[in-house]
Amino acid sequence: MTVTVAIDCMGGDFGPVVTVRAAHDFVQRHDDVRVILVGLEEKIRPFLANAGDNRISVRHASEVVAMDEGPALALRVKKDSSMRVAINLVKLGEADACVSAGNTGALMAISRFVLKMLPGIDRPAICAILPTAKGHTHVLDLGANVDCSPEHLLQFGIMGASLVSAIEHKDRPTVGILNIGAEDIKGNDVVKRAAELLKESGLNFVGNIEGDGIYKGEAEVVVCDGFVGNVALKASEGLAQMLANFLRQEFRRNLLTKLVALIAMPVLRNFKKHVDHRRYNGATLLGLKGIVVKSHGSADVFSFANALDRAAEEARTGVLARITERVAMQQPLQESA
Amino acid sequence: MTVTVAIDCMGGDFGPVVTVRAAHDFVQRHDDVRVILVGLEEKIRPFLANAGDNRISVRHASEVVAMDEGPALALRVKKDSSMRVAINLVKLGEADACVSAGNTGALMAISRFVLKMLPGIDRPAICAILPTAKGHTHVLDLGANVDCSPEHLLQFGIMGASLVSAIEHKDRPTVGILNIGAEDIKGNDVVKRAAELLKESGLNFVGNIEGDGIYKGEAEVVVCDGFVGNVALKASEGLAQMLANFLRQEFRRNLLTKLVALIAMPVLRNFKKHVDHRRYNGATLLGLKGIVVKSHGSADVFSFANALDRAAEEARTGVLARITERVAMQQPLQESA
Repeated sequence: MTVTVAIDCMGGDFGPVVTVRAAHDFVQRHDDVRVILVGLEEKIRPFLANAGDNRISVRHASEVVAMDEGPALALRVKKDSSMRVAINLVKLGEADACVSAGNTGALMAISRFVLKMLPGIDRPAICAILPTAKGHTHVLDLGANVDCSPEHLLQFGIMGASLVSAIEHKDRPTVGILNIGAEDIKGNDVVKRAAELLKESGLNFVGNIEGDGIYKGEAEVVVCDGFVGNVALKASEGLAQMLANFLRQEFRRNLLTKLVALIAMPVLRNFKKHVDHRRYNGATLLGLKGIVVKSHGSADVFSFANALDRAAEEARTGVLARITERVAMQQPLQESA
Repeated sequence: MTVTVAIDCMGGDFGPVVTVRAAHDFVQRHDDVRVILVGLEEKIRPFLANAGDNRISVRHASEVVAMDEGPALALRVKKDSSMRVAINLVKLGEADACVSAGNTGALMAISRFVLKMLPGIDRPAICAILPTAKGHTHVLDLGANVDCSPEHLLQFGIMGASLVSAIEHKDRPTVGILNIGAEDIKGNDVVKRAAELLKESGLNFVGNIEGDGIYKGEAEVVVCDGFVGNVALKASEGLAQMLANFLRQEFRRNLLTKLVALIAMPVLRNFKKHVDHRRYNGATLLGLKGIVVKSHGSADVFSFANALDRAAEEARTGVLARITERVAMQQPLQESA
């Protein structure tokens, strides 16, 4: 089986210089993949390797969704944007997945409009991978939904567990719900009711996870409201960035510390590799009738290629079928509850 | 003027071995302070310095609130707990502030019951200091309130700004509201309305701050719902812990890396000092008719002494009067709005 990935080549901070190069790297590393490069042909061509790989094709799209463009406008007006054409290739069955580093709001709105939701799922959720002390975990939602009902959180749990069970070949991944630990005031009502639904769901639910539990690896899937998830993710990014800067500053303080840095370089490089956020690039928009992966806007070639890997793996392992199956299983349970 | 701090000596993971020693350190460093050590006298005495400082006194309290005890029970049943007696000393005017490393829920419930709220403030908020790229910032609420109205968030802004203007002698500290950045779906309704109230409040409001903005130092006061704040704070703690562990592991990998660690030690020590969370220990329970500072339960002597410093500084600079004044100023504004 060949997996075809449609790439929105114009999205992200760098466009084709990153996306097309990452596509080449991706195709070279996998025998079973094809890519369709979508965007302004004249911008894409210069980055195509001379030889020409018959697994790489170009699909011209005349418009580009700007990084700061309103999703509603992008959806209504730019019908021939690289983002929309890429998503549409999934809808038409010409591609098995699509990847974009473009504007999250627009990607969400257009995906939802073009692909529609899977049966039994009300809203899409953004699911990302975060590193933990034990390996990594999947967290959702990270910003698509700011006001969730307990039922939405249950659906996130089902989708997250289906995703992990598919791509990591795990039977029953552990699922936790993000909560706070202060005594007697544990969580708000929505979280409390969602926890009850998750407990009855048949998922491998391990209960409440506090913020630090994410990084301790207390669950393989962590469910939360998009507002809370987005703040936690961004706060983590900000903190990591600050710590890295402080460390760099200390090593650059004077000639002696610079010498020490040189000696410590191999160790620091290993450390960096271990927590390199680029390895975790590629958040999945779950709940749609199609695989859509969002890359970080500032992704470089290595990072964007990881998002492509992720999209291909989700297509290979049949994540969508897994979610649909699991949701169908849930219906009678929910009705009896 | 002398500042008297009542210390709940029994709270926290370690009790008097930490709290009494920190009290000695605190008294030695400040000429203008006195402390009242509250708790089981027979547990406190062994840690008192032989010489005996007339600025240190002991107040026996026969009960102890357990770290995992329900706040309601602690409030109703343990009328002679070290926590309650310490808070009561503030109520009676015998102390200007109190500090406890005990159970947060119980501290909150007892403080609220004994001290009552300041006029115009509906709920207490937990305000902590976090390090930033530019220095530090104050974030509130961090877990006392899981469902906030826009008016509560406005009150948090007023209290936070009053606190910072008092202890840091700043005229108009910047105030931001924690929000998410996804386009078109920026924040939930409560946050949007709170932002409007903050804009009209006369505070130096700088608008939305995303999670990473906390650590970039985009505002001197960051306002948020207690659920979101608690998750963000704990996630940050968890991430910092994980990164520190990874770094340690890399340096301990083999004989060579251990040697490198030895050479890099001074640099790493400077880095550690820069981000040492113990320096930021001491969260203030704002909104009460009295100064109550919560220390981390796992605080060591250095860390607990910092919480004592914080409590004394708040008493010295008249934080409560500053809040009361600022809230009174707000009333006509709110009514006209």
